[in-house]
Amino acid sequence: MADNFRQIYEEQKLIIDEKLTRALDGRLPLSLYKPVDYILVSPAKRLRPILVLFSAAATGGKFENVYNAALAVEMLHNFTLIHDDIMDNADTRRGLETLHKIYDVNTAILAGDALMAVAYEYLLKDVKKEHLSVPYLFTRGLIEVCEGQSLDKDFELRDTVTIDEYLEMISKKTAALSRTCCSIGGVLGNGTEKEIEALTEFGMKLGLAFQIQDDLLDISGSEEFGKKIGGDLLEGKKTFLFIKALERAEGEDKEEFLRVVKNKGCREDEIGKFRDLYEKLGVLTEARDEVGKISSEAIDSLRHLSNREYAGYLGDLANALIKRSK
Amino acid sequence: MADNFRQIYEEQKLIIDEKLTRALDGRLPLSLYKPVDYILVSPAKRLRPILVLFSAAATGGKFENVYNAALAVEMLHNFTLIHDDIMDNADTRRGLETLHKIYDVNTAILAGDALMAVAYEYLLKDVKKEHLSVPYLFTRGLIEVCEGQSLDKDFELRDTVTIDEYLEMISKKTAALSRTCCSIGGVLGNGTEKEIEALTEFGMKLGLAFQIQDDLLDISGSEEFGKKIGGDLLEGKKTFLFIKALERAEGEDKEEFLRVVKNKGCREDEIGKFRDLYEKLGVLTEARDEVGKISSEAIDSLRHLSNREYAGYLGDLANALIKRSK
Repeated sequence: MADNFRQIYEEQKLIIDEKLTRALDGRLPLSLYKPVDYILVSPAKRLRPILVLFSAAATGGKFENVYNAALAVEMLHNFTLIHDDIMDNADTRRGLETLHKIYDVNTAILAGDALMAVAYEYLLKDVKKEHLSVPYLFTRGLIEVCEGQSLDKDFELRDTVTIDEYLEMISKKTAALSRTCCSIGGVLGNGTEKEIEALTEFGMKLGLAFQIQDDLLDISGSEEFGKKIGGDLLEGKKTFLFIKALERAEGEDKEEFLRVVKNKGCREDEIGKFRDLYEKLGVLTEARDEVGKISSEAIDSLRHLSNREYAGYLGDLANALIKRSK
Repeated sequence: MADNFRQIYEEQKLIIDEKLTRALDGRLPLSLYKPVDYILVSPAKRLRPILVLFSAAATGGKFENVYNAALAVEMLHNFTLIHDDIMDNADTRRGLETLHKIYDVNTAILAGDALMAVAYEYLLKDVKKEHLSVPYLFTRGLIEVCEGQSLDKDFELRDTVTIDEYLEMISKKTAALSRTCCSIGGVLGNGTEKEIEALTEFGMKLGLAFQIQDDLLDISGSEEFGKKIGGDLLEGKKTFLFIKALERAEGEDKEEFLRVVKNKGCREDEIGKFRDLYEKLGVLTEARDEVGKISSEAIDSLRHLSNREYAGYLGDLANALIKRSK
């Protein structure tokens, strides 16, 4: 089944890429839409639109009835990237210059705003009378993404964050959107209440597992173009690993972690030392276990879906994500 | 009738104010919602929510079925103010400090984003199966507001702007939202197609007349707290008056206006001179005539509305706006 999954994923990714290339055709002024277009056509995995497509199919729906919604979630995701990059003062994204660096902050603010609006426009094209919950679910997702981003910013200024607070933050900043993709796919696929519930749970847990895996890859993954090993430590980010390590460490080890908090990051030559500390404290194993547990629960919820082929592909997608190395 | 209009306007404004005060109750994190709340409760005319209420009533609808939509348009308006103030680097708004000055740019970007999302959430509360066009109209309004803002920024960098380009800009930046208020009020009031069309035209023309009147008041109005006479000239803004004057002026007069373009503004002690030039060139009279003409057309379109009482109040509102002195 995994081979079929790969093939369908790649086919649909190409279609999404192509549709995104044309999504802003004819819109003016170019001063607004050229920057938006730059973001939309830059290479990306298109995971979120694929979630919409597969979720719709898993409830018996057809791809052609949900392509606009699939584009909408990718637009929403890209809107958050544009504004987050401004807030983080990030110079690069996916190995390319960020929008506010190529243009300026004002252009990027407005490009993000317009992209969010265009996302709604695309979403609404796929919404029939019986899908009135879709714009509501989409809006709830968007609100939670904003709340999650706010919590993330708050955490940067705080000395300590509990693991529950961290989980609340990623459930909003990351998982709210994957949940939204799956739930609106289910509604637009005319799924049963039970199917939509199952997809909602799947999307939520997939997002949580994805983010903890992301935290793990930062220290244990392979170098990706434009992404450094240990970047989270350099920035002093309060990740799953860091919070767990700070909870468990004692004596001198604890002092080391507290110093990262105080200095809002560590030096590049210290990353190896902190990786060894993570290993010693068992937080890498704990994070891997957590990813395994949450993704198993996610996959387990797929048993309620009527179309077994696409339920399987969603499971393949979850497995691919937690086994990725970058 | 005008007295009744005043009374109902004031009554409903208080209700809107009160609902806005409670609109974010219980939402967390406060780091996100406190800044949003600051904007929502700051004193304002609440013209846009009133347009929604009166438009719904003018087609036979009830206020209680459109209050959420009325809050939504005010939220959308305030979202644009937050982000516009960042882009304009404005220190004050309505006599109060702007959000990004009280907090910081990042907080204001995110507050604006969240407010836009919450606006959709409120809007959708009033949307029944038969009102599926409402989120679409709302989204079209939002997109055009972004396009209008982009054009406005473009014009700052250009030496010349034609009056047609100016009218396109204000039709998006200002009039798209008043049009949206009236059209969604009409749809939610379950108006006929003809009524919704009439309200759409009314809202559009009201917005155009309002903006040209705003340009006029900048040079001829009374000083308002936090707003200077001639502010547009000081900033070198390409207003209706300025564009018309630049078109008509000859010789030395033309040189004076070209100097304002080149220097991106004039000195404070030159404002009187430019007002005299506007007078001499007849552009104040022309602007007044244009406001009168467009608002007459707006009011004329109200004849198609079934509820004559509220059609009258919309006319009163238009008259009040074009006769305002600040």
